[in-house]
Amino acid sequence: MKVSESAIEACDREPLIEQLRTLLGDRISTNRSVLEQHGHGESWHPTQAPDAVCFAQSTEEVAAIVKLCAASQTPIIAFGSGTSLEGQVQAIKGGICIDLSQMNQVLEVNQEDLDCRVQAGVTRRQLNRYLRDSGIFFPIDPGADASIGGMTATRASGTNAVRYGTMRENVLALTVVSASGEIIRTGTRARKSSAGYDLTHLFVGSEGTLGVITEISLRLYGLTEAISAAIVNFPDVRSAAEATIQTIQMGIPVARIEIVDSAFIKAINAYSKTDYAELDTLFLEFHGTRAGVVEQVQMFDEISLEFGASGFQWAEHEEDRQRLWRARHDAYYAGLALRPGYRGYVTDVCVPISRLADCIAETRADIATSGLFAPIIGHVGDGNFHTTIFIDPDDDAMFAKALELDKRMVQRAQGMGGTCTGEHGIGLGKLKHMRREHGDGAIEVMQTIKAALDPQNIMNPGKIVDC
Amino acid sequence: MKVSESAIEACDREPLIEQLRTLLGDRISTNRSVLEQHGHGESWHPTQAPDAVCFAQSTEEVAAIVKLCAASQTPIIAFGSGTSLEGQVQAIKGGICIDLSQMNQVLEVNQEDLDCRVQAGVTRRQLNRYLRDSGIFFPIDPGADASIGGMTATRASGTNAVRYGTMRENVLALTVVSASGEIIRTGTRARKSSAGYDLTHLFVGSEGTLGVITEISLRLYGLTEAISAAIVNFPDVRSAAEATIQTIQMGIPVARIEIVDSAFIKAINAYSKTDYAELDTLFLEFHGTRAGVVEQVQMFDEISLEFGASGFQWAEHEEDRQRLWRARHDAYYAGLALRPGYRGYVTDVCVPISRLADCIAETRADIATSGLFAPIIGHVGDGNFHTTIFIDPDDDAMFAKALELDKRMVQRAQGMGGTCTGEHGIGLGKLKHMRREHGDGAIEVMQTIKAALDPQNIMNPGKIVDC
Repeated sequence: MKVSESAIEACDREPLIEQLRTLLGDRISTNRSVLEQHGHGESWHPTQAPDAVCFAQSTEEVAAIVKLCAASQTPIIAFGSGTSLEGQVQAIKGGICIDLSQMNQVLEVNQEDLDCRVQAGVTRRQLNRYLRDSGIFFPIDPGADASIGGMTATRASGTNAVRYGTMRENVLALTVVSASGEIIRTGTRARKSSAGYDLTHLFVGSEGTLGVITEISLRLYGLTEAISAAIVNFPDVRSAAEATIQTIQMGIPVARIEIVDSAFIKAINAYSKTDYAELDTLFLEFHGTRAGVVEQVQMFDEISLEFGASGFQWAEHEEDRQRLWRARHDAYYAGLALRPGYRGYVTDVCVPISRLADCIAETRADIATSGLFAPIIGHVGDGNFHTTIFIDPDDDAMFAKALELDKRMVQRAQGMGGTCTGEHGIGLGKLKHMRREHGDGAIEVMQTIKAALDPQNIMNPGKIVDC
Repeated sequence: MKVSESAIEACDREPLIEQLRTLLGDRISTNRSVLEQHGHGESWHPTQAPDAVCFAQSTEEVAAIVKLCAASQTPIIAFGSGTSLEGQVQAIKGGICIDLSQMNQVLEVNQEDLDCRVQAGVTRRQLNRYLRDSGIFFPIDPGADASIGGMTATRASGTNAVRYGTMRENVLALTVVSASGEIIRTGTRARKSSAGYDLTHLFVGSEGTLGVITEISLRLYGLTEAISAAIVNFPDVRSAAEATIQTIQMGIPVARIEIVDSAFIKAINAYSKTDYAELDTLFLEFHGTRAGVVEQVQMFDEISLEFGASGFQWAEHEEDRQRLWRARHDAYYAGLALRPGYRGYVTDVCVPISRLADCIAETRADIATSGLFAPIIGHVGDGNFHTTIFIDPDDDAMFAKALELDKRMVQRAQGMGGTCTGEHGIGLGKLKHMRREHGDGAIEVMQTIKAALDPQNIMNPGKIVDC
C-alpha cells in the first residue's frame, strides 16, 4: 500500500501563515534566507525550503501549530540544528518548518537514576556543559553538535556507541505531538517495562514522519575514574578488523574503536602537522577504573600484536588524548584541504562485524577503480563505516560517479546482511534502498503504520515510507 | 478509539479445524487436556482454553495457519512454553492456539558477530546448552526455562538485566507472521541501523497481538574469564537500595544485584537448610577478568560497609556460587513450604532506582497491614521488584486482599514514575493499569496501530489494547 499523496498539493499558505502569526507573533518567519537555511541539512541534497519557519517554545505551542497545519493539510517538518546528512529536513512538498532550537531547556536531571529530561532543541554539547561537575555525562557523540531531538529522530550514534549504545538504547521516554496535534507521552522513568507497545522506539528513528518529538528522557552515565586513548597501526584493514572482533569477543569494554584508513591519515598529517605512520590505523579510547584501563590497554595491546600491529601509542593525559581525537575529528577538513573547493559526500553503511574487513576491502578496490578521492573512517566496533567522497561541486560527472559508488556500497553492505545506514538515517538519500533492505512485507507494515498515525500524510511527507 | 470486537464472535470452528487437520495431519489437537494445558500460563488467572491447538513446525506453516484463521476471523494465540505470569495465553474469545514448541531449531550461530538466530520455540536453557563450549552465551534469565519467542513477546528480563539488558536490548531482528498471514522480516544482522521504523521493537513486547513471532536473532556475549558471587546483609531495605544506587553510579558492572528480604531469607533457611543471617540481603554476581572481578568485589565491599552492611561472603568457586544462587532461586518453593497448599501470586513493579527504597518500604508496611504473607525479591539494579503473595486457593477473601495489595503496589509504583510491569507483561492481569500508566493519548496510538495491523482483531484479542 502506498501512502496517499493526494492530500499534499501546492496551495495558498497565506491564511495559515496569518493564523500562525497570530499564535506566534514575530516567532514565525518567511524571510527568504531563513527559509533557505531551513531547507537543508549538511549534505549534498539540494535545498528545498519550507513556506514558513515557526520558532516554537513549548510542547503546547508545537501542538497548536500542528493543529493549525492539520486543518489545512499542510506539511510539517521538524528542525533541530540542521546537521542531518541525508536530506531529512528538505521541505519537498513545501509546508511549515517547526524550528525547535528555542526549546533548549534541560528540564530535569536525576543524578541517582542517571537520567534526565530535555527539550528537543537542547544540543548534546549543551547538555554535557550543563552536566559538567556533576560526575555524570551523556555519551552519544555523532560528531556535529546536533540537537537531542534530531539525534532521536534519526537514531543517531557515533564514536562511542560500541560501549554506550546508540539513541535506540539511550532514549527512555518521549513527549511527542501527533499528526492531529495531540500531546502523547511514551515510556516511564523506570529502567525497564513490559507494559504494552514500545512507542518510544517507534518514534526514535522516525525522522518526523509520525509526530514531532518535543521532549526526550535520556540515560546518563557516571564519569569513569580513568580515560585513556591509544593509536595503533595495522598492516591492512583486515588485521585491524580482526583485532577489533577479538577485542569485542573478549569483552574488553572499549569506549571507542575507530578505523582511519591510510588515505585519511595522510590527509591528517598534512593538515594537522602530525606525523602518524601512514597506515591503516585504529584510534581507541578506554574508560574504567585506573587499574581497569591499564588492564584493557594491555589486553588490547596483546591482541593487536597478534594481528601484526605496530607503533602503539598510548595517550594517558587529557591533553594528549584531546590532540589525538582532534586529529581524528579533523579528518573531514584534512580531506577538504587536499581538495580545495570540493565538498564531502558522506556514505554510511553498517555490516555484521565478521564482514567488515571484506566490506572495507571491496569498497577500497571499488574506490580505486572509480578514480574518486574517498578515504574511509569507521566505527569498527559496530561494523559501521563511512567513506567521505570529496567531489567538485561543479563536476556533474564526478557527482554521478559518487552516487554510483555510494549505491554499490549500500548494495554490498546489504548483501552482507547489513544496512544502508548505520546512523545517518533515510531522509531522501537512502529512500531508494529501503525496499531491498526490508522487503515488501516490512515496508507494507511501515506504510500501514504511517497511514494510520498520519492519515493526511502531513508529517515530513515524502520520507522513509515513500519507497 | 476502541478496537472493534464485533469481528470476534463465538461460532462453529469445525470447518476451520478440518482445514487445519488437512494442513497439519495429527499435529492439531482438540483433546480436552491438551486444550486445558494451553489455556493458561503459570499465574493465578483462570484457564481459558482454545478450541484447538496446532503444533507448527515452520514459519510457512504458521503463515498457512494464520491465513486459514483470518479467512474465518478466528482468534489466534501463540504459545511457547506456557510460563507467562499475567494470563497472556488465555483464549478469552476461544480460537486457535499455535504451539511453537516444535519450532526448536537453533538456525545459526555467528561466533564472530556474537549473534544467533533461533526458532521461537527454542528455550533459553536449550540455547545455552547448544552454545556450551563455544565461549559465548545468552544471558537473559527470567527464572523459568521460557521459550525465546515467549520472552521476546513479553519483553522479558530477569536477574542479570542490570548488566546485559532485557529482551528489548538483545533482540536484533525478527521473522513475524502478520495478521493476514504474510511473512515479514524486521531488522538486519548489523548491530545498529537508522533505516526506517523500528519494527523489531514494536513486536518485542506485543504479546502476540500484532503478529506471531517465529524466528528471533539475538545478541550473545563472550563468557568472561572470571565469575564471582557474593551475599551481604543490610540493616534495612533502604541501606541496600542506597548501596545499589552508588554501585550503579560508580559504573561497577555488576552482572546481578538482587534483594531478598528478611522474610524470604527466613523461608530459605528453613527450606534449604542454610544459615543466612535473617536480614534484608543482597545477592550479587560479578563478571570480568580475574583482576577486574577482584576490583569490583572490593569496590562493592567498601560501598556496602558505608551503608552498614555486614556478613559479606564471597563465593569464588563455581560450586559455592551455584549453591548461593540455588538458594535465591528456591525462594518461591521455600515460601510455599511455609504455607503448604497455597500458591504464589507474583507482582512485578519497577520504579526509578531513586524511589526503590521508598517503594519497597511502603509496600512492606502495606503487606504488614494486610496480614498477608508476601515476601519480597527484587532486581534492584533495575528498580524492579516482586512480592510473592502466598494465598490459599480456597480462600476468596484472601485472594481479594491479594488483588487489592497488587493494585496498590502498581499505583504506588506508577505514582513514583514507574511501571505496572517490569518484566512480566500485561496479559489480562495488568490491562486495568495501562491507561493510568500511558495516558489516553498513548493508548490511542497503541489502539490505532493494533487496528491498522490487525483490522479483524484476531491476534490474541482482548490483550494489551483492550483497556
